[in-house]
Amino acid sequence: MSDFSGAARGGLSKSELEAVLRRVGEERYHNRHPFHHRMTRGALSRTEIQAWAVNRYCYQAVIPRKDAMILAHAEDPEFRAAWRKRIEDHDGEDGLSGGIARWLHLATSLGLNAEAVKSERLALPATRFVVGAYLSFCTNRTLLEAVASSLTEMFSPLIIHERVTAMLAKYDYITEDTLAYFTPRSQQASRDANFALAYVLVHADTAERQQQAIDALVFKCDILWAMLDALVHAYSEPGNIPPGAFRPESVQ
Amino acid sequence: MSDFSGAARGGLSKSELEAVLRRVGEERYHNRHPFHHRMTRGALSRTEIQAWAVNRYCYQAVIPRKDAMILAHAEDPEFRAAWRKRIEDHDGEDGLSGGIARWLHLATSLGLNAEAVKSERLALPATRFVVGAYLSFCTNRTLLEAVASSLTEMFSPLIIHERVTAMLAKYDYITEDTLAYFTPRSQQASRDANFALAYVLVHADTAERQQQAIDALVFKCDILWAMLDALVHAYSEPGNIPPGAFRPESVQ
Repeated sequence: MSDFSGAARGGLSKSELEAVLRRVGEERYHNRHPFHHRMTRGALSRTEIQAWAVNRYCYQAVIPRKDAMILAHAEDPEFRAAWRKRIEDHDGEDGLSGGIARWLHLATSLGLNAEAVKSERLALPATRFVVGAYLSFCTNRTLLEAVASSLTEMFSPLIIHERVTAMLAKYDYITEDTLAYFTPRSQQASRDANFALAYVLVHADTAERQQQAIDALVFKCDILWAMLDALVHAYSEPGNIPPGAFRPESVQ
Repeated sequence: MSDFSGAARGGLSKSELEAVLRRVGEERYHNRHPFHHRMTRGALSRTEIQAWAVNRYCYQAVIPRKDAMILAHAEDPEFRAAWRKRIEDHDGEDGLSGGIARWLHLATSLGLNAEAVKSERLALPATRFVVGAYLSFCTNRTLLEAVASSLTEMFSPLIIHERVTAMLAKYDYITEDTLAYFTPRSQQASRDANFALAYVLVHADTAERQQQAIDALVFKCDILWAMLDALVHAYSEPGNIPPGAFRPESVQ
């Protein structure tokens, strides 16, 4: 496990910076998390899959808001026009047909109640705190750091492929329709990651800014990791579910 | 386990509101958390006690900042003069002799390096996210909600008494000097809680504001609970410690 805290000391070439960013993903992206491994082995209970859907909804729901915060910090119309596509992807034409709606479909296909999922009241408090930290980061940090924090999308096509393949093969109640959320995501993520990476490589033009970009990606990996840690802790033993959070019997 | 989401429907008398707030604490304060029970049973390893000190430092360190945010939102000089004592208690006369300094002393007495603890780099990412959520809450919510979120101090004399008694009795490397942080805390907490409770009972003067006050206290209980959940998850099995966080060998 590398310590990336001094990775840009003295300054890096663009290709060196890209290599460090990719190494952050190799070491810290949540495809290495035990929860993902249990998911791909087919070892999760239906309750755990439902809890994952309920909690991950909070993350999906904040994505267009953090992207709007990035738009609000961006002075370049071309940048904004490109970044705006992310909001369109998640909200859809009418707010009811984008990625968030498809995540709700995933949740209801697992037997969950749409209104309960949307209210977020069954999510773990830890999930809400972690997701809030991501929005605060994009609110309070520089545009470069907010853009760099999105670079986890460089690694998402891999995890999506592993997740979808395994979920269809290992869980008989999960169908291609359940997982329709993921169908356009790999392509969207690759497009978005390419744009964001190009931006970071150009604008991280001092050792200090390169370190900020690296730290932002480490931060974002910590966000995704902490969400799965909270899930594992709460749902590995029944006694660990915190007050008010989703229980198997609470929404069907 | 009560659902407090509609507790103030129709409005409550002051004594009814106080009773609901006390019931939130009885049901959700972290003296009910398994980590606290293991602490008072003498069942925590030295590593777990150290990790608790390292992570709890992040919470201590943000307290005067959230109190300054409350000052910044308060228009009444008398309120500010009373609330200011909290900042003085934590920072001390010179920034080096208050509650934060005493918490650092607790950590170094457990064999930890002061600079490493102060840097917060060994804390769990989840702890940083949770503590950040508390600061954001006091930044973005009303003064009433921020004040109500401090009402966990109504319950802290009890947990401090249980903690100090058990730590001195059950852990031979912990002395009264180690725990000097707690000596003035019960009295300070009672003074502060009485003031905050009186403020809330006066200013929560509609059903909507009463519900906001109740929700704020539930939120704060979730904050304290989530910090202990993260500790338990990370340190119950060696493989769960996230990248970069405190390990037994990392600081001595």
